[in-house]
Amino acid sequence: MLGSYRSYDTAMSPKITGELLRQLRQAMKNCKFYSEPIQAYIVPSGDAHQSEYVAPCDCRREFICGFNGSAGTAIVTEQHAAMWTDGRYFLQASQQMDNNWTLMKMGLKETPSPEDWLSSILPENSIVGVDPWIIAADQWKNMSRELTSAGHSLVAVQDNLIDAVWMDRPERPSTQLRTLGLEYTGISWQDKITALRGKMSKRKFTWFVATALDEIAWLFNLRGADIEYNPVFFAYAIVGVNTIRLFVDLKRLSAPAVREHLQLDSPSKPELSIRTLPYESVYTELQAICAALNPKDKVWICDKASCALTQVIPKANGSPIPYTSLCLAKAVKNATEIQGMKVAHIKDAVALCELFAWLEKEIPKGGVTEISAADKAEDLRSQQKDFVGLSFPTISSVGPNGAIIHYRPLPETNRTLSVNEVYLIDSGAQYVDGTTDVTRTMHFGTPSAYEKECFTYVLKGHIAVSAAVFPNGTKGHLLDSFARAALWESGLDYLHGTGHGVGCFLNVHEGPCGISYKTFDDEPLEAGMIVSDEPGYYEDGCFGIRIENVVLVVPSETKYNYRNRGSLTFEPLTLVPIQVKMMSTELLTQKERDWVNEYNRKCRDVIGAEMQRQGRKEALDWLIRETQPIV
Amino acid sequence: MLGSYRSYDTAMSPKITGELLRQLRQAMKNCKFYSEPIQAYIVPSGDAHQSEYVAPCDCRREFICGFNGSAGTAIVTEQHAAMWTDGRYFLQASQQMDNNWTLMKMGLKETPSPEDWLSSILPENSIVGVDPWIIAADQWKNMSRELTSAGHSLVAVQDNLIDAVWMDRPERPSTQLRTLGLEYTGISWQDKITALRGKMSKRKFTWFVATALDEIAWLFNLRGADIEYNPVFFAYAIVGVNTIRLFVDLKRLSAPAVREHLQLDSPSKPELSIRTLPYESVYTELQAICAALNPKDKVWICDKASCALTQVIPKANGSPIPYTSLCLAKAVKNATEIQGMKVAHIKDAVALCELFAWLEKEIPKGGVTEISAADKAEDLRSQQKDFVGLSFPTISSVGPNGAIIHYRPLPETNRTLSVNEVYLIDSGAQYVDGTTDVTRTMHFGTPSAYEKECFTYVLKGHIAVSAAVFPNGTKGHLLDSFARAALWESGLDYLHGTGHGVGCFLNVHEGPCGISYKTFDDEPLEAGMIVSDEPGYYEDGCFGIRIENVVLVVPSETKYNYRNRGSLTFEPLTLVPIQVKMMSTELLTQKERDWVNEYNRKCRDVIGAEMQRQGRKEALDWLIRETQPIV
Repeated sequence: MLGSYRSYDTAMSPKITGELLRQLRQAMKNCKFYSEPIQAYIVPSGDAHQSEYVAPCDCRREFICGFNGSAGTAIVTEQHAAMWTDGRYFLQASQQMDNNWTLMKMGLKETPSPEDWLSSILPENSIVGVDPWIIAADQWKNMSRELTSAGHSLVAVQDNLIDAVWMDRPERPSTQLRTLGLEYTGISWQDKITALRGKMSKRKFTWFVATALDEIAWLFNLRGADIEYNPVFFAYAIVGVNTIRLFVDLKRLSAPAVREHLQLDSPSKPELSIRTLPYESVYTELQAICAALNPKDKVWICDKASCALTQVIPKANGSPIPYTSLCLAKAVKNATEIQGMKVAHIKDAVALCELFAWLEKEIPKGGVTEISAADKAEDLRSQQKDFVGLSFPTISSVGPNGAIIHYRPLPETNRTLSVNEVYLIDSGAQYVDGTTDVTRTMHFGTPSAYEKECFTYVLKGHIAVSAAVFPNGTKGHLLDSFARAALWESGLDYLHGTGHGVGCFLNVHEGPCGISYKTFDDEPLEAGMIVSDEPGYYEDGCFGIRIENVVLVVPSETKYNYRNRGSLTFEPLTLVPIQVKMMSTELLTQKERDWVNEYNRKCRDVIGAEMQRQGRKEALDWLIRETQPIV
Repeated sequence: MLGSYRSYDTAMSPKITGELLRQLRQAMKNCKFYSEPIQAYIVPSGDAHQSEYVAPCDCRREFICGFNGSAGTAIVTEQHAAMWTDGRYFLQASQQMDNNWTLMKMGLKETPSPEDWLSSILPENSIVGVDPWIIAADQWKNMSRELTSAGHSLVAVQDNLIDAVWMDRPERPSTQLRTLGLEYTGISWQDKITALRGKMSKRKFTWFVATALDEIAWLFNLRGADIEYNPVFFAYAIVGVNTIRLFVDLKRLSAPAVREHLQLDSPSKPELSIRTLPYESVYTELQAICAALNPKDKVWICDKASCALTQVIPKANGSPIPYTSLCLAKAVKNATEIQGMKVAHIKDAVALCELFAWLEKEIPKGGVTEISAADKAEDLRSQQKDFVGLSFPTISSVGPNGAIIHYRPLPETNRTLSVNEVYLIDSGAQYVDGTTDVTRTMHFGTPSAYEKECFTYVLKGHIAVSAAVFPNGTKGHLLDSFARAALWESGLDYLHGTGHGVGCFLNVHEGPCGISYKTFDDEPLEAGMIVSDEPGYYEDGCFGIRIENVVLVVPSETKYNYRNRGSLTFEPLTLVPIQVKMMSTELLTQKERDWVNEYNRKCRDVIGAEMQRQGRKEALDWLIRETQPIV
């Protein structure tokens, strides 16, 4: 599943914002919030943890302007209100915002950056305010530098001004916590803390501040349901050389299972005793810690953490750095996590094959729509063991809708599946043992020669990445062109990256590795990392093609071993057959045909056995038919 | 030809530096040079134009420490003297420096950066000095930031302290200027100035400061010989909306041909009248220009220009930016330049084929050495029309010497060529119509199966890049992995980039495009750019393999044309046969065999015709034999 977007179910009529803007502008002038009046107020999309998906209480940019896409920055000045978003959202944003707002179309040459726009409209020496909790340290740094060089100043307004005018703002979610035992995590949270302290000591850090929600969930082997699709919970953690502080809504810790899991009442060792504090107290607690720092103490915090927290740390005691130790440790899955991911993918494949068998039968009758197909997929997944929910909103798209990369079916766009159009479904689920994300492109009638040709180029790219052998230490972005070479040769391409990291019963998108021409500072791939491999091709107005597997980085045996570096390759975890009907097999090399046959054979063997076990006869018949080898 | 290195002919006994260091340290304390004593003095490698190769008068780092490799930074404090260089030069540097110096081995974990080292040994609030002319603006910025954050300050010492103690420092070269007519350049300097002004006006710049020697040579259609292998001359240029200032040793402008070329005595239009000023006056002249700037005037200068010049420009009037307009304009060759490059490569191929025919005959007799082979190559090249000199020192290496990537034969390493070892020659020349750079790996007896296997993987990589089709706008670094895929699959690799830009009768290395996994900020490839394609494989202690062609970026006809972007591919300009004897042809695909046959056929047709014209019968016989198709 590519990039992110937020749910988009609301009506398409613009939100009326005149009164809200009047109130916000009053707040901007009110010295209760900042010692001087501020001339511009920035409203970013994120939450205090820089989450990709955010909870309803954090949808402040949506609240103030009405636009609810995943990416966008609103800025309000005394005279103007403008909102920047990218090409995916131009239409949606123009429909959701009233004429108090100017839509700033990012990526167009004539569109100024927020900083340039501010410089062009603000009087000299203006004060630009932002909530320091929802802007990351690195973003703050860049924006502040640009505004300063234009003669203005960026200031941190501690109380959020949107919250000040948002009367019916939802509560911050505080869902029940789920504890994960060693059978799912492979490593106890105590051992994770110890490993973290090892890395801290090696790099001479005395404190570690964790702010990313998936890192905290991973560290403590806990899960929540505070954000849709993401099994995380609102928390911070600060780990010292012999102390652990966990900041979380304390009510959540009353459940006996959670208390026992965290050993709150009887810690095994003093240095593994967790001090629990209210979620909101992280700021004052970090201040207290920093006030007591020795000059030699160093604090480790990520530059993606909020500006509010990073600014508490004295410069002499450490500056924010790009990746945290947890982010990397979480990315490299251990044997138990890998086993869990494999099991989750097997269950997920059973459900998806069942969907395809059902679609094959139902589509000719008419009446299957993009939405009903997505619902059916969810229903089938939910029958699988340890199903928790979807890992992102299902992209179920047929014909021309498939060419809209971030499509999600809505009642007003919902199209009926037919035997005449290509169907693309990008979907995935959260199971207690793992997270899935798979895209298949199917035709339930007879695909055109051009559809098959394009599909085959995409398949060649998918195989080129999946079968690539590369040295240890290679960064994923160096593999991106392998996915495109066959498309390029015919003058085709796709305008998105090729892969992202995938969490284990965690976020479907995670860092610090991936496969994309857009990044350069990704971490090298190592055995145990899990990424997606998802090239595509999109013909506007006609069809979309994407073939996505989740793949595991594994060691590769090679004939030679230059400088003893060792080699890596990928093992597909996703085991859903790739439709032979969509292939122009004469365009495949023998090696590629062998790959397809071996892959589909593995799907038949592994998923077939599970279907047999579950007694899913119809799906099994479909599977066996769909996995006949190409000759 | 990969990266750069400097001539390395001097004896390997260390330079005695005790007295020199004493004098330098006195100068550091002498308030004649800086208002306060300075605690550390940095001696970078570069000249005031950040040239890759430098003239003898600019070899200051070599003078102070004795080490004459291409890369290295020396720092002298009251107590210490240390020199940083990379793995290519550890041995050489340790042999050339006496024990006053500490060798700092870059790339090893335990080696501190210069900034960290300074912070660890200097007393608080120390002053670190550097000559602002030989440090680029971007380097200054980074170094200054790091030193400041450690409590020190980086200061510009206008008089170079090495020059102050360098009694017999050579004069700055001032070789005769060569004018190039339209038949070589395709565009008059007047039209280049007009095009530059067009870009200035589009980006709202009123002044353009040119400091890179190859850009100035290109702009004025002039060449010099001030730096070995690089047909450039010491100069600066400042272009305004209707003025042109050229800063150069004025004696060089007395030749009537040069005066006429530059229209010094009768400019065609006032805005194309060149005001000539002494080389040294650029600083005061830029100061005078900046003093008269209006607030809206913007000055365009590259962040690779010297800190000395960039700091003259008030921040409000523009900050240094990564690439100049000239750098990009120069990189995209026009039809005349392309034609000239083609002709130069044909002549160069005749000479190289002749060398190989001669080697084939002479090696079995014994007595051909790496040095004599290199001399023979130069002799044969010098017989070709419009030969000016070599474009870099010839890498002529046999057997284990071939595995030393930056090898250059010296009397003490000189090895005799034999029918039992692989021979690698990386060489090139400057002709008035173009610059060449070609590597061939040959065996004059029977190569081993392993040598052939490795050669074939390198060849597959070379072909994968050369035959790649990719969309307009693709950056070269995205093609780098194509060159490695076949090596990677067998567990092999090479630890250098795949290609660099090549000038037209200019520097053999030029920006802003290239093909390397190490860069990310290269400019997209466009039709007319010329780069090298040179994957390799090096087996330490045994042999080296590299196959290098200079290739031209050309439009490619593709079946489809996604979003009307158009596609590109490469056309080899180098036309020297690739030795079939070195190939394991059974490892090649049919497409690869076709590529080799088509390439060698083109060599036979084009170079054969020229040999016939020149009456070089023996070379022609060799060529025809070496270009028989693989079956």
